[in-house]
Amino acid sequence: MANLNIVPFVSVDNMMKLVLHLGPARVMTEIARYIEEDFRRWESFDKTPRIASHSEVGVIELMPTSDGRMYGFKYVNGHPKNTKEGLQTVTAFGLLAEVDTGYPVLLTEMTILTALRTAAMSALAASHLAPKDAARMAMIGNGAQAEFQALAFQAICGISEVRLYDIDPTATAKCARNLAGSGLRVTACASAEEAMEGAAIITTCTADKQLATILTDNMVGPGVHINAVGGDCPGKTELHRDILLRSAIFVEYPPQTRIEGEIQQLDPDHPVTELWQVITGQAQGRMDSRQITLFDSVGFAIEDFSALRYVHDQLRTLPYSEPLDMIADPDDPRDLYGMLLRAEAKAA
Amino acid sequence: MANLNIVPFVSVDNMMKLVLHLGPARVMTEIARYIEEDFRRWESFDKTPRIASHSEVGVIELMPTSDGRMYGFKYVNGHPKNTKEGLQTVTAFGLLAEVDTGYPVLLTEMTILTALRTAAMSALAASHLAPKDAARMAMIGNGAQAEFQALAFQAICGISEVRLYDIDPTATAKCARNLAGSGLRVTACASAEEAMEGAAIITTCTADKQLATILTDNMVGPGVHINAVGGDCPGKTELHRDILLRSAIFVEYPPQTRIEGEIQQLDPDHPVTELWQVITGQAQGRMDSRQITLFDSVGFAIEDFSALRYVHDQLRTLPYSEPLDMIADPDDPRDLYGMLLRAEAKAA
Repeated sequence: MANLNIVPFVSVDNMMKLVLHLGPARVMTEIARYIEEDFRRWESFDKTPRIASHSEVGVIELMPTSDGRMYGFKYVNGHPKNTKEGLQTVTAFGLLAEVDTGYPVLLTEMTILTALRTAAMSALAASHLAPKDAARMAMIGNGAQAEFQALAFQAICGISEVRLYDIDPTATAKCARNLAGSGLRVTACASAEEAMEGAAIITTCTADKQLATILTDNMVGPGVHINAVGGDCPGKTELHRDILLRSAIFVEYPPQTRIEGEIQQLDPDHPVTELWQVITGQAQGRMDSRQITLFDSVGFAIEDFSALRYVHDQLRTLPYSEPLDMIADPDDPRDLYGMLLRAEAKAA
Repeated sequence: MANLNIVPFVSVDNMMKLVLHLGPARVMTEIARYIEEDFRRWESFDKTPRIASHSEVGVIELMPTSDGRMYGFKYVNGHPKNTKEGLQTVTAFGLLAEVDTGYPVLLTEMTILTALRTAAMSALAASHLAPKDAARMAMIGNGAQAEFQALAFQAICGISEVRLYDIDPTATAKCARNLAGSGLRVTACASAEEAMEGAAIITTCTADKQLATILTDNMVGPGVHINAVGGDCPGKTELHRDILLRSAIFVEYPPQTRIEGEIQQLDPDHPVTELWQVITGQAQGRMDSRQITLFDSVGFAIEDFSALRYVHDQLRTLPYSEPLDMIADPDDPRDLYGMLLRAEAKAA
């Protein structure tokens, strides 16, 4: 077997090339399809809440999962204070491996890929939960995730308009500028209330670590779909508790969402619906046109698995990886030390 | 800040160059010192048993830890059947990151590095537990780890002789050949009993998944130190239970060793001594010359952390890494999507 030592690596540069080659809309649409496929076989996955290492300023997490054939994990940090230092709040990379051998088959940057899969997941959820013919989305929080959300909802849910609001007007201006060529009608708004005017979908995507109340109860009318994305962790919420009590709540993986999501504000036995059951038809999505639906997004390992699987499949035909000499591969597997000796002899 | 996107990567090739440049004996001696330093501040580490994903043929594990300043984890698989397919039983890579930012600072192969740190750990334990002036070691199991063990015990404990035995004579021949220039007196033996003749230290390092009994009670005389390395997992042991009952048992991290180590054969409350307490002087090591001491080695995340820290420190002065474009680094951290647009404009 040749090149057992090599693991294909997708750098940030190659991930950008891959996304630009296919187009972000197509990539997010296809990742949503991969997520949907994996959610349909939810019960075949190993599931565990993420393994977090908390510090005073942030968190570093490992998110592993496996479908019995492939194993994937993501390394991801969350450091809200990083932005002020010119660093990303969230950076990530991920790995896919064969369960049968334990050998890695893909290492990839996942900062961009996480942004894509998060937006794909939100739009996939909304395609089951949002009012039919929703055309207008309020986008509250216009940071790194905002454009991805807007474009995923355009591609997957068919929205035609986004209304932007951020406490920092320069973030809104950045977002509006980046979406200028998208075909979306984009309106910069001066308040969250203004952004929500006539919106059938409300996406909140802010990054404060403190308990915040981006939306209060009186701001939310009947029939809307709320897509609460925010940078999730214990102590971090975006919605007033009263909104939650009026909403039908949909989550990815309850044991994780109860710790990290909006529903950390509710009783631990408050009823929620698992999104995979909506996708398989075992549970109902939106009931009627006056119901408030809420996707309490926190991001789950299976979505990263789907995204890794997607990138791995793309590399069958696309050249956007480089070989990484990551696995020691002695001719005789028991002769690891001999590999060192032969390298020494060769160098001499 | 320049090059925020870059993570230094140590390939297999560069790890070999680093080890050959410094010499394996020096590397293992220095890693043992790093482990000793970290064991002395044991209580300052986040400790969690490894996170394992088991399948019928093997296991894939993540082993994270943090000292509050740095965070490290290792990816490692264990697939005993791999050898028959020309693959490594164990392959690994690891990462070191800053707790303050969550940004990775080192990605490295860890198959070779794990072999080095495992042997360094064994020799460090033996330096506290083995009889004084132990000169002869029996080495039962002559696979990928064997030479590293022999050389670490030579460098750190001052042994001058190894007696080799493996059920596969070609493994013994391979090991003897690789150790020919080491300065150790090397004897190939036809049985475990023969290998153990006059040995003050007995190292077992076999890789069967089944419950095996490499050593039976009558084979082990008073006063020896047993270094039970084996490929550890639930259901995998090397020593007869009666040996354990006669031994003073030393372990790395009891919650993990009780699941994976030799002591899985004993009652869950069977007394064991934590090695870090021996190193700090809080607990006694060897009591007298007739005591049988047993290091029930399973490998713990802090040892990998020490090894990662060592490699990271070496890269301050040695050139054995390459830059990996792994972290998305937009000029404005909130403008991840704009980074894509600018890459597109640049390519056009």
